[in-house]
Amino acid sequence: MKAYEPLTIPQEDGFAEGYGFVPCEGGVCAAEGVKAAGISAGFRRNPERRDLALVVADEEAVCAGTFTQNRFCAAPVQVSRPRAASGHARAVVLNSGNANAATGQQGLEVAQASSQIVADALGCQPEDVLVASTGVIGVQLSLDCFKTGVPACADLLEHSAAAAHHAARAVMTTDTHSKQAAFVGQVPASATADGQQVTVHVGGFCKGSGMIQPNMATMLAVLSTDAPLTPAAAHEALLHAVKNTFNKVTVDSDTSTNDTCILLATGKAGGDPIDLDSPAYPAVAAAVRSVCENLGRQIAADGEGATKLVTVDVMGADSPEAADTVARSIANSPLVKTAIFGHDANWGRVAAAAGKCGVPFDQTQVDIDFLGQPVCRGGLTVPMDEDLMLKLFKQAEIPIAIDLGMGDCHARVWTCDLTHDYVTINGDYRT
Amino acid sequence: MKAYEPLTIPQEDGFAEGYGFVPCEGGVCAAEGVKAAGISAGFRRNPERRDLALVVADEEAVCAGTFTQNRFCAAPVQVSRPRAASGHARAVVLNSGNANAATGQQGLEVAQASSQIVADALGCQPEDVLVASTGVIGVQLSLDCFKTGVPACADLLEHSAAAAHHAARAVMTTDTHSKQAAFVGQVPASATADGQQVTVHVGGFCKGSGMIQPNMATMLAVLSTDAPLTPAAAHEALLHAVKNTFNKVTVDSDTSTNDTCILLATGKAGGDPIDLDSPAYPAVAAAVRSVCENLGRQIAADGEGATKLVTVDVMGADSPEAADTVARSIANSPLVKTAIFGHDANWGRVAAAAGKCGVPFDQTQVDIDFLGQPVCRGGLTVPMDEDLMLKLFKQAEIPIAIDLGMGDCHARVWTCDLTHDYVTINGDYRT
Repeated sequence: MKAYEPLTIPQEDGFAEGYGFVPCEGGVCAAEGVKAAGISAGFRRNPERRDLALVVADEEAVCAGTFTQNRFCAAPVQVSRPRAASGHARAVVLNSGNANAATGQQGLEVAQASSQIVADALGCQPEDVLVASTGVIGVQLSLDCFKTGVPACADLLEHSAAAAHHAARAVMTTDTHSKQAAFVGQVPASATADGQQVTVHVGGFCKGSGMIQPNMATMLAVLSTDAPLTPAAAHEALLHAVKNTFNKVTVDSDTSTNDTCILLATGKAGGDPIDLDSPAYPAVAAAVRSVCENLGRQIAADGEGATKLVTVDVMGADSPEAADTVARSIANSPLVKTAIFGHDANWGRVAAAAGKCGVPFDQTQVDIDFLGQPVCRGGLTVPMDEDLMLKLFKQAEIPIAIDLGMGDCHARVWTCDLTHDYVTINGDYRT
Repeated sequence: MKAYEPLTIPQEDGFAEGYGFVPCEGGVCAAEGVKAAGISAGFRRNPERRDLALVVADEEAVCAGTFTQNRFCAAPVQVSRPRAASGHARAVVLNSGNANAATGQQGLEVAQASSQIVADALGCQPEDVLVASTGVIGVQLSLDCFKTGVPACADLLEHSAAAAHHAARAVMTTDTHSKQAAFVGQVPASATADGQQVTVHVGGFCKGSGMIQPNMATMLAVLSTDAPLTPAAAHEALLHAVKNTFNKVTVDSDTSTNDTCILLATGKAGGDPIDLDSPAYPAVAAAVRSVCENLGRQIAADGEGATKLVTVDVMGADSPEAADTVARSIANSPLVKTAIFGHDANWGRVAAAAGKCGVPFDQTQVDIDFLGQPVCRGGLTVPMDEDLMLKLFKQAEIPIAIDLGMGDCHARVWTCDLTHDYVTINGDYRT
């Protein structure tokens, strides 16, 4: 039996570890100058589920944000988008249980009024408060829960891992667990890189499980750093990170109406402001990307009903766009996703998904690996060790790699399998 | 409670009924000059399932064909495409159980050799024989089943409804029933339309249940007519019909590697040849379209695991392409499809699916109906009678209509719901 080498998957630069950053505790409170809280404020019927979160900088912070491209965008997105564009913010208020989407003028007024309530509690302007909502679409969001909940939540604001955890839990919907990540590392303290270093943290939380194929941002994510990023540097670091992480995640190809990703930079780490040309910028940007990748992978792994995280690598494409199109076509194919649920290294379905999306290639040049094992070479079946495959399918993460043999471009997309539980979760009549 | 009128869905011209055609029996044998047969030839392990079909014209017939645009196209597609382009053919041989896809040079040789076996049995040239296969991908197709099966099948060729039914059954894979349709009507006998009329039949069968989002043709379909179509008229009638019927069906957004749709025109109805400018052409083309629509709807309704046929109408788009993009985005949304399985008129998911696909519109101008009932007007929820909705959800066909309020263009797409059985059918480990 002829032996085949597994495909080589390119390793990209620009991650935290390459700059000496290491994972740390604390989530969105890992960064100095950030407090958080999460409580049950009555947005949900179940009083045991937290549903209101605040993330607050001690003083006005630099801010960057990315938002859904869905035409049916929610009221909080319409309110927060211009505020984030100003480059500065003090706080983010988030609720679960109701998305405040498709709620018209009344929904916009509720979103604005909720930011006024937060501003009153913190002693800042409503323009300094960003709002984000997640939950059911098409139902008016009550302001009353903000009126009672925001002051109570503000009283509990803390710079602690426990508080970050409460905030992360408060935005969960069909998520089975909260999603946090944080990194810590050293970066040059001055723009002239004179040898002095300061300690920088980047952390955050997100939520997302269904209606997940983010376009320019994920469902809801709040990141913070104590690095003294300028608004331009914060914007660029967030945009680059989101493009390569959250926007490469797809659970069900359905882009949410509420996708929001916000980065607050407090500057409490000290040192000179970090602009795009500062020697510290690449390291901080890499840490932002690593936090986003970590959170994005958590979203895919916790996709509605998922039993597996699936990583799809497409190599040998003749453009980055072609690689991305093929990767998404595979990652969104119900036939591929159910095959993984069935522990079936069914490369014919991967090939068919690659071939359907309009990207030209020669099928006789296509190689495919499942779980690091060659299963197709030159468009033809390679004998595989079925027992080994069934053993490898017990892994939590299922890598699929395909080389189109056309060029040098690579794309990676994360998804999950399609299971009975996905149908159960989304097919149950609203109650 | 304010009353809302249901949306008006445009009725398109160009269907058989408008020209006085009526449904009839006989499937692919409804047309004069066509014989068919279907037997069990050993492609499947189960000897009780037919797996080899022949459709044969008494003499060389005019022929048109459309084929998959999937880059991973199967060997039979590669063999049949140039033969159909010649405009003439005598026979089509089809097998189920093995798609002869991703089988390389050996697969091409098997496809060609199978057509030689059919040519020998019928006394024609192999170039007059089209081949089509459906089933598992990536496994070599044995020629032996053709060697024994084709002569046996040829002995059973008959011009009868029973024979057409046997052929239709022989191409089934995960289909739960065979899919046939036929229409009969009168058309002008001469190109000068001097008042004389001849009786014309158009009929056919198809198969398809999973890996269904045809692109230029459906999984497998064979149509026949006794109308004396010229090759150009046959080609144009088939292309127009497929574009508006089979290509508007999506079960799972996965385009097959083997999609093939063939039309044989025997001319046995008599009268002058029917070219594109003949007065009889519009009626025959409409009958071809009606047969294709009938078969396409059967495919959607019998989608893997489906409990409902779903018809998505998009109105008020500013181009046909925009209407089609929005319709497919809704029809392929797993969240919409599971909501229908759950008898949930969840218009928020329809709105989110419409908004995610890049087509611009103003959400405050969007109207949505479920089952002919207004559920969203101007982007806002309309109170609905939940009891009436649950009653209407018992229908076999679930219409969803959305008006984008941007222009005058309309598109219709057919799909089905996403159920536990879809996951079971496609998640079971290959055995």
